[in-house]
Formats: sequence, structure tokens, C-alpha cells
Amino acid sequence: MSDFDDETRLLPIGEPSGGRQSFTGHVHPGWNIGANPNGGYLMALAVAGLRQAAPGHPDPLSVTVHYLRPGLAGQPCRVDVQVLRTGRALSTARATLSQEGGPRLEVLAALGVLSTESEPTLALPAPAMPPPEHCVPRSADEQGVALPILDRLDIRLHPDEARAGSTGMAQVTGWIRFHDGRAPDAVASVLFADAFPPAVFGLLGVVGWVPTVELTVHLRRKPAPGWMLGRFETHDLIDGRLVEDGTLWDADGHLVAQSRQLALLRQGARKS
Amino acid sequence: MSDFDDETRLLPIGEPSGGRQSFTGHVHPGWNIGANPNGGYLMALAVAGLRQAAPGHPDPLSVTVHYLRPGLAGQPCRVDVQVLRTGRALSTARATLSQEGGPRLEVLAALGVLSTESEPTLALPAPAMPPPEHCVPRSADEQGVALPILDRLDIRLHPDEARAGSTGMAQVTGWIRFHDGRAPDAVASVLFADAFPPAVFGLLGVVGWVPTVELTVHLRRKPAPGWMLGRFETHDLIDGRLVEDGTLWDADGHLVAQSRQLALLRQGARKS
Repeated sequence: MSDFDDETRLLPIGEPSGGRQSFTGHVHPGWNIGANPNGGYLMALAVAGLRQAAPGHPDPLSVTVHYLRPGLAGQPCRVDVQVLRTGRALSTARATLSQEGGPRLEVLAALGVLSTESEPTLALPAPAMPPPEHCVPRSADEQGVALPILDRLDIRLHPDEARAGSTGMAQVTGWIRFHDGRAPDAVASVLFADAFPPAVFGLLGVVGWVPTVELTVHLRRKPAPGWMLGRFETHDLIDGRLVEDGTLWDADGHLVAQSRQLALLRQGARKS
Repeated sequence: MSDFDDETRLLPIGEPSGGRQSFTGHVHPGWNIGANPNGGYLMALAVAGLRQAAPGHPDPLSVTVHYLRPGLAGQPCRVDVQVLRTGRALSTARATLSQEGGPRLEVLAALGVLSTESEPTLALPAPAMPPPEHCVPRSADEQGVALPILDRLDIRLHPDEARAGSTGMAQVTGWIRFHDGRAPDAVASVLFADAFPPAVFGLLGVVGWVPTVELTVHLRRKPAPGWMLGRFETHDLIDGRLVEDGTLWDADGHLVAQSRQLALLRQGARKS
């Protein structure tokens, strides 16, 4: 069992009824950014509940999360799933992850079956990138915030982009994999879509905190084993709110996922 | 009163309780694509309920809709809203639009306050575009499907892109406004993000039906009065599922909204 599988395991509470099913789990501190659980990890916990409640449709195809309150590391959690529709090709469901009786995140998703073999009609090509051994590990202490999650995830940034404010562009590109050798899959892709430094760091340097309001990940294909490559860009920043687009490719260069998030730009010291 | 305001009006049912509030409305056939209500119009109906349930936060900032079943034109609808969190800057809420007792669409959204005056730090520039009078009205009978919605919306496509399959690119660009002169606003931008022909028509020509699974619209700024300009592109099509990105600018060239949808590509005759 990998850390990720072990630490996203949910146990059902009672029997499903009327499309509703509830689960209990534990928010492990190993995925923290500072004192808070990483948002992609919490999203993966909610997706674990969605997958169990949608038999025959194991793969998230479109997952939207809204973050309501920070998660509590080292505490139990509850995931309440309601299946809204089950069709031949797709199931649609929502999930609420709660801790200490209050909702922490709300998820709305479509699930189905992803292929590994199909050739795309259209796909975004992977950017040129030095191999992982020529890239720079993401710093475990970034802008004064400790990143325990880097004991779980091996993240190597493009050498030209690894220093905040170094490029003048709101762009970050890097390799990512699990440290323990677990192969990537669709649920891991959801986590990987929220595991890189904010792209806006490349433009603005040290900026404080960039909390995500909403993140949508579209899963497009099951990844091949090995490293995945991610690129994240912001082209739209106004009134302290930014849109960040992400793309993930697998080790064979196939497009695996696209993501987009709305985040807040909090200038000044990060509260963590 | 404009058609759009008149035909998205909701009346509350009872008093709000525990963050829950319900509304009744009517799905007007004037916004149909073939026999089905346009998805953007149904989304605007749900957003009308969200706005009433989130006082002080009138503008949708991020709206995600999943389409569960086609809407029923000419029939009443019910919108059930649950506010999940109310903060200083943002409210988060979900809404279910139902007809004949069954859910038709599920919406998850963040609402707040958009500015009209702020200058962006980063923004996507508007593409070069001939003026509306040199563009081609969207055909009221497209791929054999009647488009009653074109009596409500004036849509003018780029002359090089107006014929399906003419460009070899999955891209459509056009002007849009209400026929009755109503000024655009954030809710209209939600509608406009789902009112253009699918971008994939430009690449593949007549392709049948492109039903939306999920659509997320990010509202970035209140639009100025006048025409709005939209560009929609698909760079990702595999296994009969595509991702379409959209961008909307106002008459002053300001970025107003970004959208992204997951849609199915149904080859062959459209069921309408």
C-alpha cells in the first residue's frame, strides 16, 4: 500500500440510501502546506468517496471543488456523497468533506471511464523541458512556509523558473511523482493539479498567500507510469483575484489533465 | 423590463431557513436551441436564485453547472438554493434547478462583488475582429436545428469562421448582444458563455450534437454597455469528449469572463 492510497482510504458509514452514502476517513498531516492540509489532497479524499458511490464509473472526468474553510491536519473527516444522476457513460455526484461537524470543502463531479490507449484528435503538446535530474527540487521551505508534502511528492521545477520572481512570467513548469514509487492515476492527477507553487510567484516573487477559491480539474486520459509534467500559467489577475490554468502530461507525453482555478492574491505575510 | 430579466425572474417560496431558500420560475421557449432550452439560459435561471440567496454578493465570480437532463421549454421550474458559507468577500452556494419533480441541472458557485473600474495586472488581450456590421449573423437554422434563441440574442460571427468546417481550426469568434438593447452584466456573461456554436464545428464541419456535461464560467469584471466579443477554442478532443475554452471581452476591450466546458461529441444526427 502506498502512502497516498493509505492516507485517502475511506470507510463507509452504514448502507447507501437514495443515492446518499457517507464515509469516514483521516486527514493525514503528511500532505500539509505549512499547518494546513494541501487542497488537492483534501479533494482526493472527497474523490475517493465519489468513486465508491459511483460503481462502474471509477474515473473522475470533471471535478470542481470550492474550499469553504481550511482542513484540520491529523483529525478525522467525514465525506457525505449524493449521486445526482447515473447514466450509461457518466455519473454525476456531489460530496461534502466535513471536520468537527462543519463543511470544509464542497465538490461537484462527473465520473466515467478513462482510456489508456486512445489517440487524441486534438491535444495540447507538452513543452520542451530538461530531464528531472537537471531540474531543481521544490524548496521544502518556500516563502517561509514549511512544506511537509514534499516528503510525499517529488517535485522538480524548471531551472529557469525555480526562483520566485526570476522569469517575469506567471508560469511554473515541473516534473512530479510520488516519492514512494506509486504509479500515477486519475485521482493522483487531481492531487498533482494542486501541488505546484502558484504560477504568479514567477511574476511577482514573494507575494504571500494564494488561497484557492475554486478548482476544476478535467481528467482526459489515464497516465502512463513514471514522472508527470505540469505547466501552470496565469494570464488574468484583477482585483486580487487570479485565474490559473494548468496542464499535466504523462511520461509518454500524452495530455492527461487540464485544470483551472480561481484564487485570491493575499499580499503580505502568509497566515499558515 | 428586458426579455432576459423578465424570463429569468424567480419568486421566493416561503422564507429562507438554515441557509436554504427555494424559488419558482418559468422556462421560456424563447431561449431554445431546437426543442431544448439553451444551457446558458437555464444556468442564468439558477444564478438568479443564487443572487437572491446571497445578499451583499450580487455577482457570480465562479459558476459551475452540471447538466443532468434536458430542460423542458414552456414549463415551470423550481430552484432550490443552499448557502454553504457566507464570508466578508465571498458567498458559496449550490443550486438545483428542477422541473416535473426531477433535477435538471446542479450548480455550485462563489459570489461576490465585481468592479467596473479596476485595471488588471494581467489580462488576455482581445483578438483583432472586423466590426459587427462586417460579420455574419449566426444562422437561425444550423445543421438542421432551428435556433429560436436568435430572436433574443444578436450573434455575429467572424466572416472567415461562419461556415462550419471552413477554417480547419476548432475556433469560433463573434460579437454578441441582446436584441432588445438590454445592457450586458455578469449574469448575461454567463448566458453569453454558452450561446455560440461549438468551436469544434470550425474544424470538423457538421458533426451532430455537442451536449455540455459541465461548464464553469469565471466572471472577472462588469462589462461596459454595448457589444461583447467572444472567442471559443478546443485544443483537446479524445474519446468523444472535448474541452472548450472561452473568453469574453466587453465593448471597451476589457476581459470580462473566462469559461471552460467539458462536452460530448455525438457524431451523426442531432436529437433535438
